[in-house]
Amino acid sequence: MSKTLTTRQEDYSQWYNDIVLKGGLADYSPVKGCMVIKPHGYALWEHMRDELDRQFKATGHQNAYFPLFIPKSFLSKEAAHVEGFAKECAVVTHYRLKNDPNGGGVIVDPDAKLEEELIVRPTSETIIWNTYKDWIQSYRDLPLLINQWANVVRWEMRTRLFLRTTEFLWQEGHTAHATKQEAIDETTKMLDVYAAFAEDYMALPVIKGVKTANERFAGAEDTYCIEAMMQDGKALQAGTSHFLGQNFAKAFDVQFRDKENKQDYVWATSWGVSTRLIGALVMAHSDDEGLVLPPKLAPLQVVIVPIYNKDAATTAKIDGIAADLMATLRKQNVRVKYDNDDNTRPGWKFAEYELKGVPVRIVLGARDIENNLVEVARRDTKEKTSIQLDTLADHTMHLLTDIQSNMFNKALKFREDNMHTVDTWEEFIKTLDEKSGFISAHWDGTSETEDKIKELSKATIRCIPLNNALEEGKCILTGNPSTQRVIFARAY
Amino acid sequence: MSKTLTTRQEDYSQWYNDIVLKGGLADYSPVKGCMVIKPHGYALWEHMRDELDRQFKATGHQNAYFPLFIPKSFLSKEAAHVEGFAKECAVVTHYRLKNDPNGGGVIVDPDAKLEEELIVRPTSETIIWNTYKDWIQSYRDLPLLINQWANVVRWEMRTRLFLRTTEFLWQEGHTAHATKQEAIDETTKMLDVYAAFAEDYMALPVIKGVKTANERFAGAEDTYCIEAMMQDGKALQAGTSHFLGQNFAKAFDVQFRDKENKQDYVWATSWGVSTRLIGALVMAHSDDEGLVLPPKLAPLQVVIVPIYNKDAATTAKIDGIAADLMATLRKQNVRVKYDNDDNTRPGWKFAEYELKGVPVRIVLGARDIENNLVEVARRDTKEKTSIQLDTLADHTMHLLTDIQSNMFNKALKFREDNMHTVDTWEEFIKTLDEKSGFISAHWDGTSETEDKIKELSKATIRCIPLNNALEEGKCILTGNPSTQRVIFARAY
Ligand SMILES: [Zn+2]
Ligand SMILES: [Zn+2]
Repeated sequence: MSKTLTTRQEDYSQWYNDIVLKGGLADYSPVKGCMVIKPHGYALWEHMRDELDRQFKATGHQNAYFPLFIPKSFLSKEAAHVEGFAKECAVVTHYRLKNDPNGGGVIVDPDAKLEEELIVRPTSETIIWNTYKDWIQSYRDLPLLINQWANVVRWEMRTRLFLRTTEFLWQEGHTAHATKQEAIDETTKMLDVYAAFAEDYMALPVIKGVKTANERFAGAEDTYCIEAMMQDGKALQAGTSHFLGQNFAKAFDVQFRDKENKQDYVWATSWGVSTRLIGALVMAHSDDEGLVLPPKLAPLQVVIVPIYNKDAATTAKIDGIAADLMATLRKQNVRVKYDNDDNTRPGWKFAEYELKGVPVRIVLGARDIENNLVEVARRDTKEKTSIQLDTLADHTMHLLTDIQSNMFNKALKFREDNMHTVDTWEEFIKTLDEKSGFISAHWDGTSETEDKIKELSKATIRCIPLNNALEEGKCILTGNPSTQRVIFARAY
Repeated sequence: MSKTLTTRQEDYSQWYNDIVLKGGLADYSPVKGCMVIKPHGYALWEHMRDELDRQFKATGHQNAYFPLFIPKSFLSKEAAHVEGFAKECAVVTHYRLKNDPNGGGVIVDPDAKLEEELIVRPTSETIIWNTYKDWIQSYRDLPLLINQWANVVRWEMRTRLFLRTTEFLWQEGHTAHATKQEAIDETTKMLDVYAAFAEDYMALPVIKGVKTANERFAGAEDTYCIEAMMQDGKALQAGTSHFLGQNFAKAFDVQFRDKENKQDYVWATSWGVSTRLIGALVMAHSDDEGLVLPPKLAPLQVVIVPIYNKDAATTAKIDGIAADLMATLRKQNVRVKYDNDDNTRPGWKFAEYELKGVPVRIVLGARDIENNLVEVARRDTKEKTSIQLDTLADHTMHLLTDIQSNMFNKALKFREDNMHTVDTWEEFIKTLDEKSGFISAHWDGTSETEDKIKELSKATIRCIPLNNALEEGKCILTGNPSTQRVIFARAY
């Protein structure tokens, strides 16, 4: 297979697929809408997961694991939830196969029909709140701060690798609290954890906001989100945190005795991010040569490639320099590899590590080494520098820091350049079509108007930014009065 | 709920359930045969997973992720495999629910029937080898060394928490090799990884062996295993590693070009351990007061409990000592907690941490502290010692090491005491009934005899130990000649 990628200019969508497939992140599978996460993609996910997990634990959460299957009747217990989730999902109806009496392999055994069908979890609120009923009796059992790392399934008709797949990996936090305010505080605290992770680790600037009623999670009283801008100007929701009120506690009858010995329903939150974040990473930073990965998450941060001559002494010298450098970098927890495989040429290696998004490439060339020089290339800007051997390790360390912040700043500048403030419908449509990006505009606050705008423009309200400045204005569609601007965009 | 446990003497099986439920490891779920892994149980699994993962990576493996669902037809492709796995499994037949027109919640939408049913993976050989076909063309693509951490589902009729559940968590390694010998070497290498993990981390002595044809994995040419003895003398298979020959390569047509440009089928292995290991840990080490966890895997290794008097200066002094000790221990990566919650009394805390299996308990008592003394209790032997304050940190560190090796030695002695060598059928049955434990005996090597022994005694051949001494003898059942002893036991 050729490693040449479609360019973003030619076909942004195909460019994305090319990167994911040829960059070794994922592959299609024989199961409709499901993907195979390949080693390079999975390693990226491991680094994301480990850091998020560290932050969840640092904020007092514990992990647990709940069943994959949800009894069908559970989905109906929370009225809004069933509307949102009980539709496109995988249904287990039987528990046995048998040999086909006509000899055609195996068939479903009609005698092994389940009394009640099981749904493969699309999200776990129902089964978890059913369990919390047994775990919560008193205020002493609260707060209950639990997270689960799991696979979930939502039967999607149109799928995209990482961005929208039938099965995906995610984490889902599910917490229970004694008071409304404590639950709201938890919701926004976890939104802050997500935002900080996106910005500090993924180098991805995000807008924190709250969803309109239309876009709320099914069963939530408020859905908070972080929204990021991709290189084509579209929005990608990178994480959500839901304040669930007492909806699930009431649906599953989860009450607790407070300090005054009064019974009350428990307050709830849930929050999640998924392997979709890998799609966001790719779309936000990569270029026509391949992946560009932020050093903090890159599975491999530094690759060292030798260019030998025919002289054994020089070869030994190069190998020695590489060994020393690796030891020094590893002491500082840098993920580094020395690729001296002589089945492939340096040029092939350069292209391969560019495609895979390795942040720093160090070339130990026989001729340079004689002059104590080394070539260091950074993946983000493709800049190459000749470095004195004695400053190499130091330079590499601060280059990793530079790349991380440069990637964030570049993405931030891109977002600022593509953030448009408009005041009329005509301008709104023209901006969407000609400029792409996010639009800050007035909206009259009704679901009807929101729906109409979506229908006419394919743009949706991504969020009402938190700490939004109040400002009097007129709705771009209806001209009705508005008190604040909201963010519109076309979205993934 | 009372925290008092059934004793092992009273009812070993109930004792096990009590420990798992009251020790906070797992809970039953509303889905038949599926369990909820509670935070304490999941933390234990995380420590096991992280260490195994480190060892898999150290031996050159990478993680990846394959779909949860397997098209039904895939299971039929490998003849032996379908016999073993295509029977009791969860079958997805539909992908949508709809509102019940009669108002009773949601029902399965009959229009949303899948053309081909999907099986929730009971193991992933088939979907993985279907994928490997695309990934392997040449000897340069080999070896392919991949592991997956995942949930799997096998529809079990009789379930036990951790030991046998419909859904469980596990890892499954799936490797592809150019030669038969390399695949066999991989199979035994991973068996060694499992055995070392069981012994060094779980403090669980294991016998490495190979399964008889009857007990082989469905589709394997050889199944290697590690077998451990529980406190009731029964065997528990703690891990398996399979040499799959070219069976899956032929079933999924995975061929490669070798260095001489000839085509050949690829050689395969697979190997796995699961959350069943948590059941093994409990059954091997715990006592009538609760869990006894090996320090290397215990989520909490040391707990510090203060016993204050009414004097503020003494309270401050105790808190200060605890803070210093925690800082010192944490620098050495000890997982330590200071429990100075004054809603519960020290006696309650002691029982709780005993139940949870915390290896070391340090009591900072107001009166002792005046004499610079501290009480240190070890969970495994329940021994309490008065320690000079200035040697406390050092003592704690080597106590953790002592407990780890003491637990292993105790389990090893128990196994040796319950390993019986018998030569006649009468002795065999008598030993099984009166003594319990493992039996080393001669067997004539046929499946028929093995089946007959199982039928008559409920004991199975656990394995033919690796590096078994050859010894002439007569089969305990048939009297036919035998060349080596094998290990019989009743098993979980
Ligand atoms: Zn520099
Ligand atoms: Zn000592």
